This record gives sequence, structure tokens and C-alpha cells, in this order.
Amino acid sequence: MTTADDILRELSAPHEWLAAELRRTHTERWVSASPLDSICEQAVWPAGKLLRPALLLESCAAVGGNPRDVLAAALSVEYLHAASLVHDDIVDGGTMRRGRPSVAVRYGAEVALLAGDELVFQVFAACAACTGPAVPAQRVLAAIGVLAAAGADLCRGQHAEQALRADLDAGLDTYCAVAAQKTSTLLAASCQAGAILGGGTAEHAAALCRFARCLGVAFQMADDMRPYLAGRPDHGKDVLTDISCRAMTFPLVVARRELGGAGRSVIARAFSADTPAPASFRLLADMVRSAQVIDAAIAIVGDWVAEATGALEALPSSPSRDRLARIAVTLGESMLAART
Amino acid sequence: MTTADDILRELSAPHEWLAAELRRTHTERWVSASPLDSICEQAVWPAGKLLRPALLLESCAAVGGNPRDVLAAALSVEYLHAASLVHDDIVDGGTMRRGRPSVAVRYGAEVALLAGDELVFQVFAACAACTGPAVPAQRVLAAIGVLAAAGADLCRGQHAEQALRADLDAGLDTYCAVAAQKTSTLLAASCQAGAILGGGTAEHAAALCRFARCLGVAFQMADDMRPYLAGRPDHGKDVLTDISCRAMTFPLVVARRELGGAGRSVIARAFSADTPAPASFRLLADMVRSAQVIDAAIAIVGDWVAEATGALEALPSSPSRDRLARIAVTLGESMLAART
Repeated sequence: MTTADDILRELSAPHEWLAAELRRTHTERWVSASPLDSICEQAVWPAGKLLRPALLLESCAAVGGNPRDVLAAALSVEYLHAASLVHDDIVDGGTMRRGRPSVAVRYGAEVALLAGDELVFQVFAACAACTGPAVPAQRVLAAIGVLAAAGADLCRGQHAEQALRADLDAGLDTYCAVAAQKTSTLLAASCQAGAILGGGTAEHAAALCRFARCLGVAFQMADDMRPYLAGRPDHGKDVLTDISCRAMTFPLVVARRELGGAGRSVIARAFSADTPAPASFRLLADMVRSAQVIDAAIAIVGDWVAEATGALEALPSSPSRDRLARIAVTLGESMLAART
Repeated sequence: MTTADDILRELSAPHEWLAAELRRTHTERWVSASPLDSICEQAVWPAGKLLRPALLLESCAAVGGNPRDVLAAALSVEYLHAASLVHDDIVDGGTMRRGRPSVAVRYGAEVALLAGDELVFQVFAACAACTGPAVPAQRVLAAIGVLAAAGADLCRGQHAEQALRADLDAGLDTYCAVAAQKTSTLLAASCQAGAILGGGTAEHAAALCRFARCLGVAFQMADDMRPYLAGRPDHGKDVLTDISCRAMTFPLVVARRELGGAGRSVIARAFSADTPAPASFRLLADMVRSAQVIDAAIAIVGDWVAEATGALEALPSSPSRDRLARIAVTLGESMLAART
């Protein structure tokens, strides 16, 4: 199955440019030799998918702005993403992140708390620094307002998600609402901030937001499916964390819907405290890999992808609009490829 | 001993005005009915001393600005303070805060982590909202840069402070450096942001920063002394937390300096794992309450207060400048009063 890594590698020239420029902007900002700074550094670099900065820069360009003027803001959304991962790993006990030990595991929960906090402050330091001759302060303030509201929503979403765990009867609507709050929030904020900084109209910003909301739900679904699809090594994500948290991930929600009571009892058995995690995973994998569940899951992801690309039609034609659409389309195609 | 509460109560008209206006501004902002919002609400209200908002507003007025134009920014520094307390109580295991159970104790560490995070995002949402006809966006961006840098410094300071614990030979210089990073950082950022938002010169902003840096050190010293001075009920602060953390607070640093090896061995005994906390407190209290230690402590605080008020001389004469000076002077006087 193709991951967002692969998608951005396909768009390889912009991605390499982006990584190099972000690295340079980042290094110029963080000159302090404080030990906590270097821990924050490890949480950000080597960089992950850089999906959120890419969305911000492409959105800026799609409304006629120059992405080179807003690199600091692109960096800020990566900091926000990294901060939320660092704090998530404290709460969820995640041990691996981007193929290396999580900050919480390596330095302890107290240091991870401080490192995540510092990263959040760096979000706003970086974003505030993005004003200049081509980017009026008023636009930067509006972008800061968008990022701050998104950050608060992320916190509310994580708080709400804790209540959802182990709810075996959670339906697809509930799942999508949580995924939108958890995953789409920051993607949508990245697109909206990019559109605002690029000087786009409110209509264009709203279209990019709709695109990102649908893309986020589709991404979360694909991410939840990944451990259950064969032929791909797992990129550092601890697949057993979801099970130990008794999280109703996308494939389980689909199985519950497609298979009814039979699906429910398999999930209940896998989640029971008596079953060791690897055995639970095998139970769930056998169920999810059935043709009925896989086909239903692919169809649902396809609907969200179509909705995402449809939203982009409100924008003028441009290479950036095409690249944004292609991120969504490639995601849908990759699900089909994993099926066959 | 007079606390910052009493000082602000003396300036009672502005304080009541401030509390009421902040409450109104706050309520208008937080319309969401999310459960996490109401937990954040409890971390902020009933309000504490409101020292940081008061410093921001007085600094704004001292350079010729109108404090009513920057209420949202004043609110933002209170959110920043509240966020740091909520996260501190996770790390330090603080059980009481402002006379009520800490968020970490009442809702658990995971929820406290999210509530503190949301409060940090609300800092920047509130501050970004403060732009208007009288406050150009460029000034608000500069203030946001100041708050973000201060927040990052606070995190670095707390990280550094963990290394200082149980260092019985930490001297006064080390103590002051840590106090400046821990306590002065946000006071100085409040003054600097107020001066920037009020349209002050760089020289006036720097003078207000110097004032706040000295005030912060004096405040931290007075706060550390409080549990050891008789005749005042403790306002919710858990006095035994410092001992269980083996923190070298101001009175212990002074005792170590004044009493030499004798002081060191009393502290070592009090910090030893075998001594129960209440007995440790009595050991330390007997030592700190000696005339030699108390007099030395008062003289040191007096020096920092004089330095603080001296810094204000770079500003034009105004009622706000007088009120700022009085906060520092009252602090020094209150130490003398506690002595006699």
C-alpha cells in the first residue's frame, strides 16, 4: 500500500526542495544550545512526511501566493504536528515514532511534556516571523488565529476520543467525526493558513478547507488499514498500541458494520484482557482481510477521495491544484492496488 | 507577610476593573461547550493574583497606550501563566492550586496535559484577537513573538531546574539565574508585550523588562520565604512539595551561605529520605527563622527591589509608572513587616 511518504516522493522535486528549505529555515531559528532545544530537534528531524507544510505551501500557491515567502509558516505547522505527536506518545504510551524511540520513552514523560510545550511555543514564534514585504502582518495574524483555533480543537478532539475507546458499537459516522477532529483539523488549518497567507479569497480558503477535511478522513482510514494489509513493512508505528488502547479503528468499524454480531464478537474477544496482543492482532487481521470487509473499506475511502477532489473544483486551474488533487487520488489508487 | 494578592488589593479599583473586564473578554471568547474548555475554565477562574495582566496593562499605559485596547492580550498572559501551572502540577505532583485541587489531581495527568495544551493555544488565539483600529497588526505580531519566546524560555528553564534539585551547594547566583528564568521570564514578557502594544520606544520596553526581571527574582524569593514566616495562612500552596522535590529554595540558599557547613548539614538531614516531610519542615523552619538568616534574606530582597524601581526611572512620570514602582516597594516593605 502506498503511504503519504510515497506520494510525496512521487512529487519528488517539490518535496526535496521543501525538506531542504525547511531544514535551513529551522536551523536559522533554533540557534540556542539548550538541551531541551536539541530534544525538540530530535522530535522534528529527520522529518516525517512533511504533508502539512506541503499542504500549506501548495494552498498558498494555488491562490496565487509565492510559497517561498511563507516557509516559516510551513515550518510552524510541522512543529504543531510534532508537538501533538510528542504529547500523544505520553498519553498513549507510544514507544516508537518515525522509526525511532518516542521522546517519552527516550527521555521520560516529564521531559516529553516540556519538549511538546516548547514546540507549541515555537509554532507561534515561527509563524509570527513570516511577515515581510510580500506578506502583510494582518494576514500572518489571521493565520496565527487559524493555527491557534486548530490546536485548541485538536486538544478537545483528543479529550473526546478518550471517551470513545472500547465502544464496540461506535458507527461510521462517529468514526468519521472523530477522524475529522483528530486528523483533518491540522490539515485543514494548514490549507487555510496557506490560502490566507497567499492572499486568497474567503471562497478559495473554504474550498481548500473542505478538500483537507475530506483528505484527512481518507488518510486516517488508510492509516488505520495499513497494519492489516500485507506486503508493506510498518514505518515505525507501533501496531499493537491501538489494540492495547481498545481503539475502534476504521477496519474494525467497517467489519462491525459488514459482519454484524459476528464481527462484534471477534472484536470483543480480541479486546478482552485475557488475549495477548499478538494473538488479538491475528484475530482481527483474519477478519479485516476478508473480501467483504476490504471491498467495503475501499469503497468508503473512495467516496472521501472523490469528495476531496471535488472541493478543489472551486479553485482556478494551476499546477498546485493538480498536485493537491493528486495527493488524494493517489491515496485512493493505492488502496485499490493493495486489494489486488 | 503581604502577598501579591494584598498588593493588588491595595490598588483595588484597577484590580476590580481588571478582573471584571478580563472575565467579560474571556467569556466572550470561550463560547464552546466542550468539556475540556470547562476544565480550562476552572484552571483560570476564580482568578489568581492577575499580576501578569496587570503588568501588561500598566506597561501599556506607562508608554502612552490605552489599556482598554489590549485587554485580550492581558488575558493571554494569564492563560500562559495558568497553562504553566497546570503542567507544573503534573511534573511536581502539586495537589493544591489557588486553594482548590489541581487539574492533575482532579482529572488525572492525561486530561491536565490536554487542558494545559489547550490553554497555550488560547494564549495565541486571544493575543491575535487584540488587533484593531488602535492596535496595528504589526504590534500584535511583535507581542506574539515576545510571548512565544518567553514560553519557550519557561520550558527550557523548567528543564534546567530539574537538574538543580538536591544540589545542596547551589549558590545565590545560581538561584537567581533559575528564578529569573522561571519567574521573571513571563513577568518581563508581560511588560514588554504591554510596551510594544502601547506603542512605546525600544528604550522604554527595555526599561520595563529590566524592572520585571528584578521584580520576578524578588517575588520568587518572597514566595519561597512565605511558608517559613509566621502569622499568615498559606494560600493553597502545598508547602511540603518543595521539600519532597528537594528544591534549594531561597531561604535554604541564604542559610547555606550564612551558616556554612552547619546549615548544609541541617538541609541534608531534612532532605534525607528517612525524615518525614512535617519533621523536615520543622528542622528547616527553625534554621530559617534565626535572626541571621532572616536579616540576610531581607537585605537581598531589598537589593532586588531597589534595582527594580531604579529601572523605572528611564520612563516618563505617570500614575502607571508609580503603580508599578509601588508593587515592588510594597513587596520590600512587607518583608520588613514580617520581620518585626
